[in-house]
Amino acid sequence: MKVVALAGGVGGAKLVSGLAQSLGPQELTVIVNTGDDFWHLGLRICPDLDTVCYTLAGLANKLTGWGREGETWRVIEELKRFDGADWFKLGDRDLALHLYRTGLLAAGKNLTEVVAELLQIWDVETVVLPMSDDPVATMVFTENGEMAFQEYFVKYQWQPKVKGFRFLGADNALPTKEVISAIEEAKVVIIAPSNPWVSIGPILSVSGMKELLKTKNVIAVSPLIGGRAVKGPAAKMYHELGLEPSSSTVARQYQDVINGFVLDTIDAQECEIINVLGIGTFLTDIMMRDYLDRKRLADEVLDMSRKTWVH
Amino acid sequence: MKVVALAGGVGGAKLVSGLAQSLGPQELTVIVNTGDDFWHLGLRICPDLDTVCYTLAGLANKLTGWGREGETWRVIEELKRFDGADWFKLGDRDLALHLYRTGLLAAGKNLTEVVAELLQIWDVETVVLPMSDDPVATMVFTENGEMAFQEYFVKYQWQPKVKGFRFLGADNALPTKEVISAIEEAKVVIIAPSNPWVSIGPILSVSGMKELLKTKNVIAVSPLIGGRAVKGPAAKMYHELGLEPSSSTVARQYQDVINGFVLDTIDAQECEIINVLGIGTFLTDIMMRDYLDRKRLADEVLDMSRKTWVH
Repeated sequence: MKVVALAGGVGGAKLVSGLAQSLGPQELTVIVNTGDDFWHLGLRICPDLDTVCYTLAGLANKLTGWGREGETWRVIEELKRFDGADWFKLGDRDLALHLYRTGLLAAGKNLTEVVAELLQIWDVETVVLPMSDDPVATMVFTENGEMAFQEYFVKYQWQPKVKGFRFLGADNALPTKEVISAIEEAKVVIIAPSNPWVSIGPILSVSGMKELLKTKNVIAVSPLIGGRAVKGPAAKMYHELGLEPSSSTVARQYQDVINGFVLDTIDAQECEIINVLGIGTFLTDIMMRDYLDRKRLADEVLDMSRKTWVH
Repeated sequence: MKVVALAGGVGGAKLVSGLAQSLGPQELTVIVNTGDDFWHLGLRICPDLDTVCYTLAGLANKLTGWGREGETWRVIEELKRFDGADWFKLGDRDLALHLYRTGLLAAGKNLTEVVAELLQIWDVETVVLPMSDDPVATMVFTENGEMAFQEYFVKYQWQPKVKGFRFLGADNALPTKEVISAIEEAKVVIIAPSNPWVSIGPILSVSGMKELLKTKNVIAVSPLIGGRAVKGPAAKMYHELGLEPSSSTVARQYQDVINGFVLDTIDAQECEIINVLGIGTFLTDIMMRDYLDRKRLADEVLDMSRKTWVH
């Protein structure tokens, strides 16, 4: 069964890693947010793509969820002497990837080709695609003004209150031909439990993406459990935007594109509201504590999609 | 006394370090070859500038003469996994500099400004200037075709036979205003014992540079001792180009711009030939084995310039 997953960083990567265990390599395509991508020290850095790829390659730091296992920090320690700009923690191994990618991009390859090449080097058979080869930049309007996503997220540790978002370049960004055919061929599209505002939002903002998804069975997994995010600023963002952080709020946000929603059993009381929106619901334990949880949740989401929403 | 030194990498940096000991910080300006500069992994790398600056900052690897003392190689070890392209040995500390420089250049600073900023960070008071802020690329014609200098020098370990050189961009490269005023104000210009073909040659190829130097007292220090280079391919190049590798050959090569030549006492028999060219000679031990030698040679060259060729 051909499956597409839309994913951001850490939370998304966990479900993706479960799906990769459940499905054959020909069955899974992951479309990843590139709205966080940015230039830093002349290097093209793609945080979400790297988190997903490192996770699939078994190279991810198990403690942090991002970056490399067994990382060292020689370069950035030296770099501090120059400008003190060490807010973005570039590990030495991680840096090797950024250098290699930047070189390939400078040589004229597109990001889709670069990711494919990296996965081949790492013997990862799952297909991972950037949402677009065109640049999209997630910008965050905050109480301290507008800032690029990484600045908000890493430099200011998502402390400034958010007022809204925009995705620079999204209107002119097209899904790649690989993205289009993956979605067209998919029996189901799974929206991973990533941040709806800044991880899934940018993917949906790509020109024509929502239209592509509207024809498909699309199931989202809630990023909130009991109104709280497992990690990161999702719940805080809902609060600051004047919305109740709850699974039903997330489902409403996705209602244009989804027909199914997976939420945690502790949020059972929200099913009714979601069903009223015309969206099917499935309750389970959605917390992914370990590799077994990832595989179990992936299996459950796939089972649900097979039984309930097959065309 | 205002002094300008023209220098390439390792050999040049040694004399420069001696001159910096002999002269006050307001007295010495070093103009450095940038013909070796190249893009690698998206980074702007300036081998000769870095060797000179690392040497002046006391950061240079004393064993190799290039790169950093106490260097580690984490990034390049990881990079090997990607493309195996590890021919250019990028140390972790060294890499921090390349990243920082590339970032400043991308932000619109010119190379002259970048070098000034680095020297300030390292508390180096000597002025170091790139020969030009315009790109010049030293190309080597070899038996295996034309190649960029670093490819010839590092990748192929200067083994291919050379047939000639060209300096791409030199016709359109201008000396900076800093270079022009340093030369105009200099009482003496010292050509360091760097490779005449690929270290000093590119400097002299910059548009208008020879004309600037013709009005000055210019003294070259021979890079050959007894027909051999202390380090690197200079002597091998003369052979391959059908010239005798000797101090008098070097003096002849520089005869347009120099009026004095410092050579090793073991080459005393060459003075006559050089004097016939209208170039004064000074014999001494020009081998710089240690810091004391650097200072001694610098003092001797400066003494000679004061006594003999003051306008």
